[in-house]
Amino acid sequence: MCAKLNVAVLIYPGVEMIDMNGPIDVFIKANGLNNGKYNIYSLAETLGSIPSENSLVTLTPTYSFANCPEPSIIIIPGQIISEGPPPEIGNGSEKLIAWLKEMGDKSSITIMSVCIGAYILARTGMLAGKKATTHYSSIKDFQSKYPNTHVIKNVRYFKDGNIVTTGGITSGIDGALSLIEQLDGVDIAQHVSDIMVYNRGAPLPPYTLLPPYDD
Amino acid sequence: MCAKLNVAVLIYPGVEMIDMNGPIDVFIKANGLNNGKYNIYSLAETLGSIPSENSLVTLTPTYSFANCPEPSIIIIPGQIISEGPPPEIGNGSEKLIAWLKEMGDKSSITIMSVCIGAYILARTGMLAGKKATTHYSSIKDFQSKYPNTHVIKNVRYFKDGNIVTTGGITSGIDGALSLIEQLDGVDIAQHVSDIMVYNRGAPLPPYTLLPPYDD
Repeated sequence: MCAKLNVAVLIYPGVEMIDMNGPIDVFIKANGLNNGKYNIYSLAETLGSIPSENSLVTLTPTYSFANCPEPSIIIIPGQIISEGPPPEIGNGSEKLIAWLKEMGDKSSITIMSVCIGAYILARTGMLAGKKATTHYSSIKDFQSKYPNTHVIKNVRYFKDGNIVTTGGITSGIDGALSLIEQLDGVDIAQHVSDIMVYNRGAPLPPYTLLPPYDD
Repeated sequence: MCAKLNVAVLIYPGVEMIDMNGPIDVFIKANGLNNGKYNIYSLAETLGSIPSENSLVTLTPTYSFANCPEPSIIIIPGQIISEGPPPEIGNGSEKLIAWLKEMGDKSSITIMSVCIGAYILARTGMLAGKKATTHYSSIKDFQSKYPNTHVIKNVRYFKDGNIVTTGGITSGIDGALSLIEQLDGVDIAQHVSDIMVYNRGAPLPPYTLLPPYDD
């Protein structure tokens, strides 16, 4: 019997609803097709109540850094964004960054940021020298803040080794499906996207496309 | 100054993550473009902790039936579904059904079910004589259980008067965007879907399409 793969989803005050729940839903639905391969849990710096974006729902994580099982996959959602680069990203505390760095040192781990969760990942230094993407409205800002990262635009997600970064919001669903394809095969990934009535093949909405030579 | 429109999102044990959070996210993002027109809140039968699908996150609602502001719009998400018709739908308690019936009697209210949240709505009797849709894997079961409803297949959502029903999971995003289009206009609806990097125009995934003459 194989051990389950631990999938940790970071939550923090203001966490974006689909950034967080898109990937969660993908892994839950995959579990229904692969004999429950994934042990999915939410995780925060400390236990206790966490207000989601706009405080619409109060979330309580399954684990804190202090007691969580060692993750094989970490998902880092973004937080609320209206337009343009956010003034402050997530909680991104020193403790969170230190924990992520420690996790990132393990060669067996996969880390995926969703939307502007890429800023949290960048702060750990793990995106230096890597190719990565983020929400289309933050691409320029991200590139200027992290010039050592080769920022890719007009994609739903980008994989560079064991790091996956995704574009805005629903693109987290695409990123998670790409991990399912890698870990469970294309048929299960397609089945999950069917159950979710999600069209993986859909083009990016035209307005979100950035011109090819604008930087 | 106009009063805000109250948007109530029902939550209950096992609530599906995207069914619930897709529409929430749409209304949150619309609020960023229309001067905060919507007062969005989560709502459950009683206050206290509620485990979401697979107990991944524990949710605490903003209000209970006893103290919630009178809603103008009610969203009813579905619960976990693997394949085929679910054995039991949501909490669907008598109290919930009675509350929905009371709300449904108001001519000014809009009610939207997501995915198999349609079963909860059907139990209130509000879908009798109406056209409605649900998750593709439950279409036949739903039609056999509710023969007085004209079940529409192969659509992301369907509006019949003040009742909106949507197909599976991500289709709740489409249903909510259709309400934004109605209430805020097509430009804001398009802008919200752009921010979410969601392609409204995408076709349904081929495997989810039901044959035209199978019933």
